[in-house]
Amino acid sequence: MTVTSPAGFAAAGVTCGLKKSGNKDLAIVQNLGPLKAAAAVFTSNRCKANPILWSQQVIADGVVDAIVLNSGGANCYTGPQGFQVTHSTAEAVAEALGTSAGDVLVCSTGIIGEQLPLEKLQLGVSLAAGELGQSRASALEGGMDAAEAIMTTDSKPKTVVIAGGGQGESVEAEAASAYSIGGMAKGAGMLAPGLATMLVVLTTDAQLTPAQLDTALRAATRVTFDRLDSDGCMSTNDQVTLMASGASGVVPDVAEFTDRLTEACASLALQLQADAEGASHDIAITVLSAASEDDAVAVGRSVARNNLFKAAIFGNDANWGRVLAAVGTTSAAFDPYNIDVSFNGVRVCQGGQPDQPRDLVDLSPRAVDIVIDLKSGPAQATIWTNDLTHDYVHENSAYSS
Amino acid sequence: MTVTSPAGFAAAGVTCGLKKSGNKDLAIVQNLGPLKAAAAVFTSNRCKANPILWSQQVIADGVVDAIVLNSGGANCYTGPQGFQVTHSTAEAVAEALGTSAGDVLVCSTGIIGEQLPLEKLQLGVSLAAGELGQSRASALEGGMDAAEAIMTTDSKPKTVVIAGGGQGESVEAEAASAYSIGGMAKGAGMLAPGLATMLVVLTTDAQLTPAQLDTALRAATRVTFDRLDSDGCMSTNDQVTLMASGASGVVPDVAEFTDRLTEACASLALQLQADAEGASHDIAITVLSAASEDDAVAVGRSVARNNLFKAAIFGNDANWGRVLAAVGTTSAAFDPYNIDVSFNGVRVCQGGQPDQPRDLVDLSPRAVDIVIDLKSGPAQATIWTNDLTHDYVHENSAYSS
Repeated sequence: MTVTSPAGFAAAGVTCGLKKSGNKDLAIVQNLGPLKAAAAVFTSNRCKANPILWSQQVIADGVVDAIVLNSGGANCYTGPQGFQVTHSTAEAVAEALGTSAGDVLVCSTGIIGEQLPLEKLQLGVSLAAGELGQSRASALEGGMDAAEAIMTTDSKPKTVVIAGGGQGESVEAEAASAYSIGGMAKGAGMLAPGLATMLVVLTTDAQLTPAQLDTALRAATRVTFDRLDSDGCMSTNDQVTLMASGASGVVPDVAEFTDRLTEACASLALQLQADAEGASHDIAITVLSAASEDDAVAVGRSVARNNLFKAAIFGNDANWGRVLAAVGTTSAAFDPYNIDVSFNGVRVCQGGQPDQPRDLVDLSPRAVDIVIDLKSGPAQATIWTNDLTHDYVHENSAYSS
Repeated sequence: MTVTSPAGFAAAGVTCGLKKSGNKDLAIVQNLGPLKAAAAVFTSNRCKANPILWSQQVIADGVVDAIVLNSGGANCYTGPQGFQVTHSTAEAVAEALGTSAGDVLVCSTGIIGEQLPLEKLQLGVSLAAGELGQSRASALEGGMDAAEAIMTTDSKPKTVVIAGGGQGESVEAEAASAYSIGGMAKGAGMLAPGLATMLVVLTTDAQLTPAQLDTALRAATRVTFDRLDSDGCMSTNDQVTLMASGASGVVPDVAEFTDRLTEACASLALQLQADAEGASHDIAITVLSAASEDDAVAVGRSVARNNLFKAAIFGNDANWGRVLAAVGTTSAAFDPYNIDVSFNGVRVCQGGQPDQPRDLVDLSPRAVDIVIDLKSGPAQATIWTNDLTHDYVHENSAYSS
């Protein structure tokens, strides 16, 4: 149930001293082939960390042998020296695994504006590479170690495995078309905005070209990670990487593969939401009957980023006026005085006027469903967010790991 | 030092039972003339409260006899019944003061989605109108009563008076050119986004046309209330009104009047910031060397709305990485790797790299100065905001007044 679930991958997670806690802080995921195809999507923040600048070059040819990830420091706003640290880390991995640095992706997460100690990274690479040759690395344990090593304020590792293909008229045909997708994630955020840096590594033993992987990855992230908006903040280090080993020998139907990949991304996204820093509610904001999907996303995102709304949910208050005040700041097509709003199935506003008493809404469960009906067209979208809590303020005012 | 400081105005603030607390909850400010010129600016939220819809019609001809303001309810998303309540309130004022409802502005503030009780409003209008004919109303007391009656979560009334004109070669000439501007405000927010509804009434005894007032008001609010961004939330009820009585007989230089009006607005804006719900820091974010003023505002606003940055300031943490991560989400012209950032005079980032240790920054004072140098042009702007605190979460999760 992690990056080593699909055939053709090994992974390791080790401690090299980047985290003061002594917890695991460096991971490598290696693609054992035979295929070395990959795709990646990166933060759209213009202030990109050094590992992002590096990885954007590496992914250009669609060939990746390994990815190295560290917690304990973002290596962002660290200038040429910081870029050199990223480069040297990739070189250390390449030397240890017998490949080229140009085929090694790098991800970092942690505080911005502090140099990463290269010696500790090199030690970590050495330790992790030593594990990669052992049986543990290609088993579940190696993948779980890696998922643990990329954690920062996460309370638990996030992993997933999805079975793909496996259809046919006989048992043999089913087996011959089966492949799998594995994954791990850290953070609570997204490619666009992010609570903290989000790093995701997805693996598959299916056979796909880099271009096919890229198309599938963009389609999957667009409706999953891109719709998770914990606090509207966009990280400098977000990266989602997909690597294919082809070890199953299965060439999947690309549409079916994209669906399975989307399932894997959705699972990881919801795990990130459930573990968002300090949150006490997981909120799904569904916008119905929008003129376009862009409109639906814009409206949902505006509500998701409204601190007054988020604080009200923390207080178990079905304050639908704050929902409409947020909707009103968008340029989406709608009639401000003909909107319906429901909280957990109770329609508190109909046609822009009070409907059911908001006291009827039970907001004590962690899951909150907000439905906004714009009555303006056929499109819809759901944005996932969290409430604004005392613990959020506490964790983010004290954060320095 | 309030709306009754300029000659030609009377004001009253009374209790009519809209607030459960029994505090004052309805105010009237009356223009006694001889001039009845006015201008107003309104929230840009598309979901506008009924008093906004009403007042936008009243202000169209630039003639206003009085403004009635209530706390204890926003009268927003209350449908045709709510609009009728606003209309009837204006009619009650018109009848009591012997004018036309079409010359009476209405403002409301409080919770959204609940009907205002018309009988209480009518009682309040009757009580306030009774006071307007008495000497207290045209003295400071009447203006202070009004400033108190519009408060919601404000901890104190906000008022201002600015002396204008008063220049000349003789004492007589100085006296003959003197006028004044008075004002009151409630809330902590702004015309664009707002922590809570912001209501402002400005008065002057200078002689100006409605068109001159409108131009001056837009110029003044653009660089004051529009740059106050406590929490990025935009109210449905924000309104800033400027009324001129002409009672001084002074026709001011319009540019000089605009400067004085801007001073008055800046004073009220900073009072709003200082009293923002739950805030423990008043933060001024100054963006220097931007390619345009729009760029400077966009960058400052992006930082001001970043919850991670705001929580860090609450924790007295000079986390400049969060500043740059917010800057990177804008489309302003700048080189992400050639930016300087200072916190309270300590340059913690130079050319996109660590400079002075952030431990040198003292964030214990309430006032925090962030300076971001984009090195991209001649423009600059300052955005005012607050930190994100436990008290903010508490007050806004428990808010129901």
